[in-house]
Amino acid sequence: MNKDELFQSIKEKRSFLCVGLDTDIRKIPEHLKNHSDPVFSFNKEIIDATARYAVAYKPNLAFYESLGWQGWQSLEKTVRYVRENHPGTFLIADAKRGDIGNTSGLYARAFFDKLGFDAVTVAPYMGEDSVKPFMEYPGRWVILLALTSNKGASDFQYIENKETGDRLFENVLKTSQNWGTSENMMYVAGATRAEELKEIRKIVPGHFLLVPGVGAQGGSLEEVARNGMNSQCGLLVNSSRGIIYASSGEDFARKAGEAARKIQKEMEDLLEALL
Amino acid sequence: MNKDELFQSIKEKRSFLCVGLDTDIRKIPEHLKNHSDPVFSFNKEIIDATARYAVAYKPNLAFYESLGWQGWQSLEKTVRYVRENHPGTFLIADAKRGDIGNTSGLYARAFFDKLGFDAVTVAPYMGEDSVKPFMEYPGRWVILLALTSNKGASDFQYIENKETGDRLFENVLKTSQNWGTSENMMYVAGATRAEELKEIRKIVPGHFLLVPGVGAQGGSLEEVARNGMNSQCGLLVNSSRGIIYASSGEDFARKAGEAARKIQKEMEDLLEALL
Repeated sequence: MNKDELFQSIKEKRSFLCVGLDTDIRKIPEHLKNHSDPVFSFNKEIIDATARYAVAYKPNLAFYESLGWQGWQSLEKTVRYVRENHPGTFLIADAKRGDIGNTSGLYARAFFDKLGFDAVTVAPYMGEDSVKPFMEYPGRWVILLALTSNKGASDFQYIENKETGDRLFENVLKTSQNWGTSENMMYVAGATRAEELKEIRKIVPGHFLLVPGVGAQGGSLEEVARNGMNSQCGLLVNSSRGIIYASSGEDFARKAGEAARKIQKEMEDLLEALL
Repeated sequence: MNKDELFQSIKEKRSFLCVGLDTDIRKIPEHLKNHSDPVFSFNKEIIDATARYAVAYKPNLAFYESLGWQGWQSLEKTVRYVRENHPGTFLIADAKRGDIGNTSGLYARAFFDKLGFDAVTVAPYMGEDSVKPFMEYPGRWVILLALTSNKGASDFQYIENKETGDRLFENVLKTSQNWGTSENMMYVAGATRAEELKEIRKIVPGHFLLVPGVGAQGGSLEEVARNGMNSQCGLLVNSSRGIIYASSGEDFARKAGEAARKIQKEMEDLLEALL
């Protein structure tokens, strides 16, 4: 999916919501646990209930890998289900991969060819050759970690460069712009401090930003939109727990749909006001 | 496996060799390709032929993930095979993971509980809470990326901290020492510049270092040993392609054994000279 198509989808759905499929086997409703593949059953119902309100889904690989190869199987089935039943959806593998060039190429093959994702999150520590192999797939995307929303972000991401004064996440934003374009790169931009989103937007005016941590983790959607939106929206805002665990009962999918719809309505207003 | 046990194993085998199981389906000998699980068949033979000479094995996850869930299955079988047939072997998942705290906890569960590895390589970009969950497993290890051996290492790992003058990889070494000890942390230390290994050793005198890139990638084993060894050896030196692809014919395992033995002999001499 290219940038124009993604923007088109945002306009059609009046939403820039990404639903995080952080499906934890320990947290899914009891009545699903005797299904042959409870994780897939859960995802399927969540997806069907939220697909009208979301432009993207983002399974985090850790949740699937904690179940071994069976978890990878659930993930493959989930991707296939979305492709067959909700075409035009943007699928992000939240995998935070990154290795030496040839090896990153194999990760790209895993997530793009084998699983069929549109995008993969990638960690920047190992530099250019660890990131570029993901860009060799037309219409697919790297989403590079710039500023993350966790506590540990402060350990290294704010270190100031002696030469340029840039903080490390700014270094990552600037340097990586030589590796790709706003047509094949996005950035993870933690929303815990709205002011920083404004600063990030200055460095990468045209790129899409994937913003985690709105909802359960407490960021304000309005602040994110005011500071991060560009002329093609340029934002995918993720919500996981607030949607997928809105209820732990048999009504979990309906409640997830309602939670997604609530965020979508807010996004619709923001798109109208700001775009 | 704790540090003393690892050192014991090094003394018994007179080797600090780690064999990288970067098993590429496209590169394994023709006669294995009609096996039901060619990757596992290949690993099994490589392991049996090299286990006398190696203290550790290090499958890189990208090679397995590029085959989807079947690749994960080959990996699970490989770990189980080593546990059952070569007890006392140190098993490293070269996965370069790292995510927000809870999510890293799930990766730890995947690699330690589900797959049964002794150690996982972890990327430092997201800081403390992305690394610590891996340390909650007694006898298991985090191997944190400090200085990598690829070209892209120069993009960010050498950025000098305005406040302290430390380069980023030195920052990572220093800061992360507050997170764990030399009993549950090691560091990836690229061997492309021997002088740097000496500098790293000064910052972390007691920690084990995992050194990639000796052999096919061209580092000198002797230089690595002279600059990196400590009183408990403190080194695991990896070789992948030079061993596992020593031959592409039916004699691949025998040739792999010979290649491993050659490195082991050199390591034996170095252990005698330097320890």
